[in-house]
Amino acid sequence: MLRAALCAIFLLCALPSLAKESQGHVSVVLLGATGDLAKKYLWEGLFHLYLDQVSSGHSFTFHGAALTAHEPGQRLMFEVLKKLACPSDVSPDRCAVVKDQFLKLSQYHQLKTSENYTALNREIGTLLQQEGLEEAGRIFYFSVPPFAYAEIARHINGSCRPRPGAWLRVVLEKPFGHDLKSAQQLAIELRTFFREEEMYRVDHYLGKQAVAHILPFRDQNRQFLDPIWNRHHVERVEIVLKETLDAKGRTSFYEQYGVIRDVLQNHLTEVLLYLAMELPANISSTKEVLRRKLQTFKSLQGLESTSAVLGQYQAYASQVREELQKAQDYVSTTPTFAGVLIQLDSLRWEGVPFLLTSGKALDERVGYVRVLFKNRAYCTQRESLREMGKSQCEAKQIIFHIGHGELSCPAVLISRNLFKPIMPEGSWKEVVDHPQLHLFGLPLSDYYVYSPVKEREAYSVLISSIFHGRKDSFITTENLLASWEFWTPLLDSLTQQVPRLYPGGLENQHLLDFEMMGRELSFTLEEPVELLHSDGQTPSDYRTIQAKFRQSPLVSAWPEELIARLALDIETAAAKAVARCGEFHLALSGGSSPIVLFQRLVRHHYGFPWRRTHLWLVDERCVPLADPESNFRSLHNHLLQHVRVPYLNIHPMLVHLNRRLCVEEDQGPELYAKEIAALVTNASLDFVLLGLGSDGHTASLFPHSSSGLEGAKTVVLTESPVKPHQRMSLSLPLINKARQVAVLVMGKGKHEITTQISRVGQEPRKWPISGVNPSSGQLVWYMDYDALLG
Amino acid sequence: MLRAALCAIFLLCALPSLAKESQGHVSVVLLGATGDLAKKYLWEGLFHLYLDQVSSGHSFTFHGAALTAHEPGQRLMFEVLKKLACPSDVSPDRCAVVKDQFLKLSQYHQLKTSENYTALNREIGTLLQQEGLEEAGRIFYFSVPPFAYAEIARHINGSCRPRPGAWLRVVLEKPFGHDLKSAQQLAIELRTFFREEEMYRVDHYLGKQAVAHILPFRDQNRQFLDPIWNRHHVERVEIVLKETLDAKGRTSFYEQYGVIRDVLQNHLTEVLLYLAMELPANISSTKEVLRRKLQTFKSLQGLESTSAVLGQYQAYASQVREELQKAQDYVSTTPTFAGVLIQLDSLRWEGVPFLLTSGKALDERVGYVRVLFKNRAYCTQRESLREMGKSQCEAKQIIFHIGHGELSCPAVLISRNLFKPIMPEGSWKEVVDHPQLHLFGLPLSDYYVYSPVKEREAYSVLISSIFHGRKDSFITTENLLASWEFWTPLLDSLTQQVPRLYPGGLENQHLLDFEMMGRELSFTLEEPVELLHSDGQTPSDYRTIQAKFRQSPLVSAWPEELIARLALDIETAAAKAVARCGEFHLALSGGSSPIVLFQRLVRHHYGFPWRRTHLWLVDERCVPLADPESNFRSLHNHLLQHVRVPYLNIHPMLVHLNRRLCVEEDQGPELYAKEIAALVTNASLDFVLLGLGSDGHTASLFPHSSSGLEGAKTVVLTESPVKPHQRMSLSLPLINKARQVAVLVMGKGKHEITTQISRVGQEPRKWPISGVNPSSGQLVWYMDYDALLG
Repeated sequence: MLRAALCAIFLLCALPSLAKESQGHVSVVLLGATGDLAKKYLWEGLFHLYLDQVSSGHSFTFHGAALTAHEPGQRLMFEVLKKLACPSDVSPDRCAVVKDQFLKLSQYHQLKTSENYTALNREIGTLLQQEGLEEAGRIFYFSVPPFAYAEIARHINGSCRPRPGAWLRVVLEKPFGHDLKSAQQLAIELRTFFREEEMYRVDHYLGKQAVAHILPFRDQNRQFLDPIWNRHHVERVEIVLKETLDAKGRTSFYEQYGVIRDVLQNHLTEVLLYLAMELPANISSTKEVLRRKLQTFKSLQGLESTSAVLGQYQAYASQVREELQKAQDYVSTTPTFAGVLIQLDSLRWEGVPFLLTSGKALDERVGYVRVLFKNRAYCTQRESLREMGKSQCEAKQIIFHIGHGELSCPAVLISRNLFKPIMPEGSWKEVVDHPQLHLFGLPLSDYYVYSPVKEREAYSVLISSIFHGRKDSFITTENLLASWEFWTPLLDSLTQQVPRLYPGGLENQHLLDFEMMGRELSFTLEEPVELLHSDGQTPSDYRTIQAKFRQSPLVSAWPEELIARLALDIETAAAKAVARCGEFHLALSGGSSPIVLFQRLVRHHYGFPWRRTHLWLVDERCVPLADPESNFRSLHNHLLQHVRVPYLNIHPMLVHLNRRLCVEEDQGPELYAKEIAALVTNASLDFVLLGLGSDGHTASLFPHSSSGLEGAKTVVLTESPVKPHQRMSLSLPLINKARQVAVLVMGKGKHEITTQISRVGQEPRKWPISGVNPSSGQLVWYMDYDALLG
Repeated sequence: MLRAALCAIFLLCALPSLAKESQGHVSVVLLGATGDLAKKYLWEGLFHLYLDQVSSGHSFTFHGAALTAHEPGQRLMFEVLKKLACPSDVSPDRCAVVKDQFLKLSQYHQLKTSENYTALNREIGTLLQQEGLEEAGRIFYFSVPPFAYAEIARHINGSCRPRPGAWLRVVLEKPFGHDLKSAQQLAIELRTFFREEEMYRVDHYLGKQAVAHILPFRDQNRQFLDPIWNRHHVERVEIVLKETLDAKGRTSFYEQYGVIRDVLQNHLTEVLLYLAMELPANISSTKEVLRRKLQTFKSLQGLESTSAVLGQYQAYASQVREELQKAQDYVSTTPTFAGVLIQLDSLRWEGVPFLLTSGKALDERVGYVRVLFKNRAYCTQRESLREMGKSQCEAKQIIFHIGHGELSCPAVLISRNLFKPIMPEGSWKEVVDHPQLHLFGLPLSDYYVYSPVKEREAYSVLISSIFHGRKDSFITTENLLASWEFWTPLLDSLTQQVPRLYPGGLENQHLLDFEMMGRELSFTLEEPVELLHSDGQTPSDYRTIQAKFRQSPLVSAWPEELIARLALDIETAAAKAVARCGEFHLALSGGSSPIVLFQRLVRHHYGFPWRRTHLWLVDERCVPLADPESNFRSLHNHLLQHVRVPYLNIHPMLVHLNRRLCVEEDQGPELYAKEIAALVTNASLDFVLLGLGSDGHTASLFPHSSSGLEGAKTVVLTESPVKPHQRMSLSLPLINKARQVAVLVMGKGKHEITTQISRVGQEPRKWPISGVNPSSGQLVWYMDYDALLG
């Protein structure tokens, strides 16, 4: 049968001789040949590949494979193949002929045991030999669950590699892991069997025509986009994939993954990269594009649980219980809807929100990217007289319409008040006869609209790329791991979060609308019903314990609340000081607890008057400022990099004068003292943040220190019992001149010293912290429950 | 006649006795009683005052005054008075009676000479005596051109003051000066005659009901506005007064003032203050409101000519020529349209654009304030399903509709997706029956709409305030001068600017639309016709001349292009250096030319690798870093503030060690040299930017310098012939080790030295610049045409 089919091809191609002129034979093995994906897209993609390549000189065989025994498997498979259709531009006659050939070239194999693989390999070898064909290569398409990957890979590597000189391409379908660790493990496993260039990880979104055109669009329209593709012009970017279907029938997969792993970590992230990356000079260089993608990953700001809103359609829980045979009290927190706010730390995109949204059981099926530009125009003529589509006061946006939705086809839309884009004529055509649609706030006629000359299924595009060995639309291992590295912390932080329930479909109404506030997202509407109660006490039930510690006010709470409160108190002090005299002098300590505080200040206090703030150090280690041990360096990395404090307001301690460290004759402490005296009225700092060491030290004033506990000196050199020994520190007398002093104490490790000093008097030589006693200012203790209660 | 009228009042009021129970007599003198303003608004305001107060117990007389002789003046005046109408809520009967009284209480006076004033005073005195009336006070309303103010004021002060104990109120109409100087002069003159509390400067906009309600609205809706009335939520504020009328018949006034002085400096600025000021605890405290207003003035960022766009309607020039008998070649640059971008340096408003716009001969007559809020929401449900007026994705705005326009009445509009405001029930009512209008992008039904229960003319409101001695709607001298102080620099900078011509009315189309770009405004459309041609050659005709200068490549262009090219070359060098070794060492010079370069880098080079860049100084003046003379400070203000260079990569020259300036034993140059040696491989800087002084100096290496021209020293102290004399500078040997050196030379003032050094050899002692000769690097000259060609 096969022989006849091969002949048929050669007749069709009118090639004089079989073996000589052939470009070589390609064997395609589709693993999971009777699964959903294969039925829906993959066989069609393979058939279209064959249609395209039938005259190219290559010969093909197609091997469907699955665990099912030969008989039923073959029957199932041929039922699928019989339904294959040609694209509309192929004549029915030709279609019938080629389809007949394709069927003849295809056969089913049960691939279960090691012997099955050996047999397959032998069959292919025999065929090649019989037909006198030179082998060009083999494609193995893994359309199987990932737990099966490793074993199949071992079999292929062990017994199905093509002859030396011919290529092997293995095509992998997501999920590629569940988090960073599992993805790394899978990557390591696969690497033991395949070389990186042999692997083609499919993200079928990259085969979608509108997505695939993002980079070419940016490249071909550089002249228009260069000035505006940045934070000064772009207001926000929305990357959206909405589905009407729910997870019914797929909950065994879905319950493990959820919407973020299913859609955001891969599809939407890849789209984000195409939009946000710096454009390489040559976008067809796969290597260059990958490099820019990886750079872009590095510039993504880390996500926290507040970066996302989660939802779950109401019927999901019962579907899970039913399909997975769970008990009636089983509660699933798997999100079926997510909105995530991503921001980039780059000059180009700083402050521009990238909103990624996807969900099941929504009101419509649609995928799109919307780049909305800022409106910087004022239109003097009244609204009703403006020429639509020309006024600069109308929304300016670029839409990559990926598919479905009201447009129901891939398209690129550019507001007419932006520019008329350059589009490749062969593959995209302008749509001039607009349907009466209103999209993204504007009538469709206000856009230049382009759609593909020929619509192509993503899988057909990708399968063609695989055949041609073009790797630019596939996910490399580096790319994949970078993505998991980015998403895993968010996923970890969300495990306990209860998603908002939504009814599904049109009834969702405004329930899933959400808003940005700084770097946080939240649903716009209040939760309509309390869905899940925890067992009573939550941290916020405790709130702040109103109390005293060593005769001074004590704020005590769980760590997060404690830091929030301290940050708020600092901002209040800053606002008051700025109102009073135009500037705020803040002295900060080193250590790990303040880092959380810095992060809180950066992320939540965007009204903080940083431009009017002077930053001083409470103490410093005698190391260069850029040393990893330096307190200043920590301050720099966690705070200064992210806020705009004027250079001249930043006052690192002078531990590194004359290119040497804390040498007495360099007079670092004296100079720092003079700087304070010159800039701070009465040398009375507005706010001093202290910590507490388990030996009772504070600042770098250690027990039995010979300096800094009393006397006229305001800045001193001291010795620490631990390395690095040499320190510089503000003195107790200077600290006690401050308007406000906060002592931040966190963690169980501090419980013992906390208990101890709660009982002692003022004995700074023994416990330096006990000497903190502002003469006219206010001292407040900030302690978490661990430190206070043990 | 007067006697009869007075009796009539008392009868009407049914007061038993005339003199005893009277609250006192008020004489109102309207100067300019037959002028436009008086005809249109003032008499009506006075009549309404009388209507309101007729039963209050006060008695009144009204004295119209002008330069016209008695007979014709009286005739003119009574023609106006006869047409006076009552508000609609007064019954026709009562209206007729009171109007009759009002006419009887009114008389005309010629006020020209000193004797006229004495006579007026005598008449008032006689009347009071005859009727046995106690004098309460006198109002003098100046509805006359400002040049007449001083003389009238002298007469009033000299001979028309009321009896001791009674009040004097003089009411002044704008213009109050022409600029800061003239306003100060006028203020000084007036102060010699009147006390501050006696003067009522009218800005009739403050009598407009929607404007007058801004502060009460902010006050009563604090709970809603407090969280959102700031830069985090407000996207922009538009303050607009559009007129359809042109200046015909008023050009003698208009040609001297123009739209900014006529409308923006006063009306729109006052509105801006109401919107932007910090709300006092008690908004009815005139003193507190004034204090907050003055604070707000201080926070306004200074305007430059680029902060404004100007227009002039086409017919204006011929109207001026005709009315002012000017020659046919007379060119007027008086703007009849202006858009101005104002920004505030305050925590609340930093970065929020306040757009002030006004013009004559526009498409509609309307006044409004529009506060547009940022859209922070993402709406998951598709547009066509959203409930209008509820969705957070619709525009959120608050409009104070001052008058006219499509609404044609004063109103306050609040988007329904914002909040339902609290409005004072007695004076504002909710409009529920909305006309089918579309305003500011939304149907009117998407707003909560309120309009005054009773519409009142601004002048009626203000005249009532004057009578009651309420000063909160009037402009104090301090307020006035602060406003002129703010506006005068802009006005000065615009004197030479040619406004864009516009046809007027509907034909303006998009011609007057404008856009913001950073802090600059520009018209959106290109100038449709070149109105004024320079003599043919335009800058872009030359483009870059490919040439050599002193054997090195020369880039020459017009300034803007030159800077663009240099900025690009620096970015290219930076990208290469970072690719090569991860960092880029850039040394920058002081002076004014680099400032333009810095701005270019900030605004156009978003991809610049600032985080990997080290910034060094080529030279520095021996002044503290924060001194206005410091090169570092200029670098800081124009570059560092706007980009993210890590603190540790910034290397100011060490001119200020040990809190003293460039003292030899502090070894500043040696330490800076060590810093370079420690951080820069081979002390070879990647890019050094130099300038050229007209004496041939470069960096701070001056002719005949004793150091820095040769030898081993890489950083030196030098002496400048001009102040400040002491300098620190990189040496020629260090400069010549750089990979790339750019010399930037701009301006006609440099042409002579450029010519000179083009001819000399390498004579660094005479011309230090001639010693710039990188040993293995590349030197490029960047010269503008002025410097190169003279």
